[in-house]
Amino acid sequence: MPFGYNGKILRVDLSTQKITVETPPDIFYRTYMGGGCLSLFYLLTEFKSGTDPLGPENLLVFASSVLSGIPMSGMTRYTVAALSPLTGGFGESEAGGYWGPELKHAGFDAILIKGRSEKPVYIWIRNGEVEIRDASHLWGKDTGATQEGIRKELDDKLIRVAMIGQAGENLVRYACVINNLGHANGRTGMGAVMGSKNLKAIAVRGTQKLQLADPKGLRAISQSLVASIKNHKNTQMFHELGTPAFIIPANTIGFLPTRNFTRSQFQGAEKISGEIMANTISVGQGTCYSCAVRCKRKVRTKGRYEVSSDYGGPEYESLASLGSCCGIDDLEAIAKGHELCNRYTLDIISTGMSIAFAMECFEKGLLTLEETAGLQLKFGNAEAMIEMIERIALRRGIGDLLAEGVKRAAERIGGEAQKYALHVKGQELPAHDPRTKFGVGFAYAISPTGADHQEASHDHLFGHVGIGTEAVAPLGILEPVSPLESGPQKIRLFRHAQLIWNLWNSLGICNLAAQPPCALTLDEVVRTVRCVTGWNTSLFELMQLSDRSMAMARIFNLRKGFTREDDTWPDRLFEPLPDGPHKGQTYTREDLEKAKDIYYEMMGWDRENGKPTRGKLIELNLEWLVE
Amino acid sequence: MPFGYNGKILRVDLSTQKITVETPPDIFYRTYMGGGCLSLFYLLTEFKSGTDPLGPENLLVFASSVLSGIPMSGMTRYTVAALSPLTGGFGESEAGGYWGPELKHAGFDAILIKGRSEKPVYIWIRNGEVEIRDASHLWGKDTGATQEGIRKELDDKLIRVAMIGQAGENLVRYACVINNLGHANGRTGMGAVMGSKNLKAIAVRGTQKLQLADPKGLRAISQSLVASIKNHKNTQMFHELGTPAFIIPANTIGFLPTRNFTRSQFQGAEKISGEIMANTISVGQGTCYSCAVRCKRKVRTKGRYEVSSDYGGPEYESLASLGSCCGIDDLEAIAKGHELCNRYTLDIISTGMSIAFAMECFEKGLLTLEETAGLQLKFGNAEAMIEMIERIALRRGIGDLLAEGVKRAAERIGGEAQKYALHVKGQELPAHDPRTKFGVGFAYAISPTGADHQEASHDHLFGHVGIGTEAVAPLGILEPVSPLESGPQKIRLFRHAQLIWNLWNSLGICNLAAQPPCALTLDEVVRTVRCVTGWNTSLFELMQLSDRSMAMARIFNLRKGFTREDDTWPDRLFEPLPDGPHKGQTYTREDLEKAKDIYYEMMGWDRENGKPTRGKLIELNLEWLVE
Repeated sequence: MPFGYNGKILRVDLSTQKITVETPPDIFYRTYMGGGCLSLFYLLTEFKSGTDPLGPENLLVFASSVLSGIPMSGMTRYTVAALSPLTGGFGESEAGGYWGPELKHAGFDAILIKGRSEKPVYIWIRNGEVEIRDASHLWGKDTGATQEGIRKELDDKLIRVAMIGQAGENLVRYACVINNLGHANGRTGMGAVMGSKNLKAIAVRGTQKLQLADPKGLRAISQSLVASIKNHKNTQMFHELGTPAFIIPANTIGFLPTRNFTRSQFQGAEKISGEIMANTISVGQGTCYSCAVRCKRKVRTKGRYEVSSDYGGPEYESLASLGSCCGIDDLEAIAKGHELCNRYTLDIISTGMSIAFAMECFEKGLLTLEETAGLQLKFGNAEAMIEMIERIALRRGIGDLLAEGVKRAAERIGGEAQKYALHVKGQELPAHDPRTKFGVGFAYAISPTGADHQEASHDHLFGHVGIGTEAVAPLGILEPVSPLESGPQKIRLFRHAQLIWNLWNSLGICNLAAQPPCALTLDEVVRTVRCVTGWNTSLFELMQLSDRSMAMARIFNLRKGFTREDDTWPDRLFEPLPDGPHKGQTYTREDLEKAKDIYYEMMGWDRENGKPTRGKLIELNLEWLVE
Repeated sequence: MPFGYNGKILRVDLSTQKITVETPPDIFYRTYMGGGCLSLFYLLTEFKSGTDPLGPENLLVFASSVLSGIPMSGMTRYTVAALSPLTGGFGESEAGGYWGPELKHAGFDAILIKGRSEKPVYIWIRNGEVEIRDASHLWGKDTGATQEGIRKELDDKLIRVAMIGQAGENLVRYACVINNLGHANGRTGMGAVMGSKNLKAIAVRGTQKLQLADPKGLRAISQSLVASIKNHKNTQMFHELGTPAFIIPANTIGFLPTRNFTRSQFQGAEKISGEIMANTISVGQGTCYSCAVRCKRKVRTKGRYEVSSDYGGPEYESLASLGSCCGIDDLEAIAKGHELCNRYTLDIISTGMSIAFAMECFEKGLLTLEETAGLQLKFGNAEAMIEMIERIALRRGIGDLLAEGVKRAAERIGGEAQKYALHVKGQELPAHDPRTKFGVGFAYAISPTGADHQEASHDHLFGHVGIGTEAVAPLGILEPVSPLESGPQKIRLFRHAQLIWNLWNSLGICNLAAQPPCALTLDEVVRTVRCVTGWNTSLFELMQLSDRSMAMARIFNLRKGFTREDDTWPDRLFEPLPDGPHKGQTYTREDLEKAKDIYYEMMGWDRENGKPTRGKLIELNLEWLVE
């Protein structure tokens, strides 16, 4: 199937209002493919060293991938990337939904946005036509109103809108980008970058057919994938309960962060579980473009809180961050918090963790009632949690401080506050206590985007998701490794799992459909790329793409001044686990340093700061990054 | 196809006559698979540091692979490995023919031989039964007589015999092992190791059926491969002319070593070409087990020299080493020399190069007529070349000196002789002048077995064999690289080509059937391994196997005292190419050192001596090699 991939890159300079279209050759797409890897190409080639993440010179990339837009489950994700205002390093976050495929159908693989508009604008893309439009009337509005306003104005209900609400406008450092009201490019503050550019939204409508090298072959894979999804226990679990299915196992095993990681089990876990959610506030499933997994939830309540079903429903991360981490077992309140975050475009993880941090500071006397303007900011106070979301998004009072993220907030509060600021590289911890699963903890430490639970596969601590040997056997990982293990064999497993996960990030593949052991096999991914592009590729080449993206991200951060010392954990994680079946379990700083030594060498990075060696860069066809 | 690979390893201690059989688990085979990689496992685990290569404690490994014995073209090769008496490092050489598959059909994947028999013996293996038999009556006989003697004695004409002739018995440091009279484990002196153990031969007869996970799938690949072989221009070229097809292009481009590498074009090239051979002394084709390529030649002459067709016919390497390199354009004489080498079990490359070295020494006055016992050892003297083969094999007169290889011979001759001794790590150069193709030259420098032309794919200097971008595209090498190039892009191509070639060495795959661009694709190799073993493997895992074998070989040599300085070329190769289209072309020592810097880093080896880092070893599941 000789073919050659044709893609277009859209450039928009908001300062000059200049719009240009580039058509890189096939080999460019084969080298960078999409998502994180493609974004990094532009970030690394076009970036000045001293850039202010919230200044006009920051480059904001929206990148789908060579696969995005094909009618197949789990292929919908797109990346938003830029210099992060939260971490000061590589900012990147992926979202599913419908926006990425729509962009492809509108004729573009990626959008590169520079500059800053004088007044609020949105970008309107329709089948290759691009327009910068005034958004003054949308400024200050939440996502629901924004989407509605744009669709009405352009008179098309099928327009897909990636946008920011008030949190993005107000430059909350962990503001996210939301599409279809319920799908978030959650992490690293990409919404703040949009806000800093006075860019309210990117509205897209595309009806162009994708060119495919082997449509018949693709159809066959897609059909067999649907059958697998219906038969595989993990995809079925996601289908039935969504990610909230993890609450009970996380609590049972003892890695459900509770009260700002002072506990790993939560008394109220049952009440915020996926099972309870399914039987109470759930009103159906949501999904992404062309996906048979249908893992998304829709919830509605009209009780103490009125929660609209338009904004999706809480994920595991929402339930843990806004719930257990804040000591809150009120499912309706969490659902409301989730809705508000999606309205305002706040990253739910960082929001929940910032509130939990503030609650601990308040309880420890580091924040006073005066500073909270009378709010009893205590663990378990659901009203306070919701109030805090409003204050953060609107930067009101204490919310203005927390809008800076826990790292900066703790610096300003001073004293002991540092101890309660749970972050890596400035990004708040996701809801997995790594003291029961070192692999996730190691991901927190070394991820280029700061604490990230989507950097490498979760250890196979429970059967639901995670790495079983059967699943990673195609990579040559043939023997099981204990989740608690932190030695060489765990780092080897981690290295290979990370290769898989970073491939997903560059191909726009959803790990709920594809993470081994799940429905989509590695072999099918290779065949899918072949059928779409006509490239005679292999799993070897795809793993090198993944390796390439990791080396590029590392170089990006090194240029921004990150060092080996930034690959670490907050102090609290070095303390013994306070409860649960693994009570007392922890890792020493030496354990982590040893793991880094091995990992850096595995990656072809030097030991000093994890700098990719010249030979490694050349191997990965990144000679242009050799300094 | 859940299956699990079952294989047996035979151990023979010739000192104690003890015979044992081991059955390693499936995971062992999946980790090491066969050939070089499997051999290295045993060499590294069972070896004492101070071993004398010709002492009883040297471990001699005969290893087929998980694929060997299947009825498919190009899958016949087996490895003989040991500490090399020629280089003092990793000794390894592969041969096709029928012996490897026969060993598998007799029930064994590999044989490990230690100790030394008091009197000459041979090992007799028949369908799992093993016997050590007296070989006193065969000692002193050539391969033809040995094979005939054994077949007669055991009354079975279908017995396959891997054996040594007089050169092996006499411990010529580059004595080879021959099976079926015309297939050689040629390089690194494995025949001398057999001789040192008083082991004349291993005779094998096997009629057991191999267990296959997916016989039907395998048949489909095999059939489609036969069709590819018939249609592919490279396999057709091998079919019609064999490797002698290379003589004319090598001469035209100017890399045909002539008169001990003092020239790169040979006036008599036409006379020793594959085309002339096909029209004169050729009497048909030979082949290996189940192979449709049929690249082997049979020649016969009854003119000035009587040459039997039982010993195959000259390959490209024979024609160049015994021919152009000695300034000899007499095809019949070369055919006779080829026959004698196969009778005596002399590696033809090292033999030809040793004679060429002696000729240059003689012409430069470093060897006298007295020392040659009156022989006019001049370039172009065909009679002298044949006489020298006899003398080397039987260690007569000056032959005794040359039987030590050019490195040791030059040390004894002294003076300028060193300049004419063309070797790397003590092994004589193959017949490719690397000044027109840096990739091959780099292989000479860094191969763990010393100068080796089968270490990485030949540059795509001519269309016949070599790496076209289409062929290596599945590995992500997407742009052509000039054969003359020695910079980063060449090292990147080399690294990936080496991964392929070392995979062949561990799977027992023949590069004439499989080297890209050839009939067998990388994808088919993966599917073949799956069909045979039932493993859910991938090209990624197979490339890691290859990487593993390279790291193991490196460690083996480092333990033997090799350093970065041993990865080099003889001085002559740094001089400008004396003639041909690329006249004046050469590389500096700095070029080579720069290439090594990049290569070591690509491999995950340190720059100091190319020692694999701890992290790299752990990545490759070689934690047990961390010191």
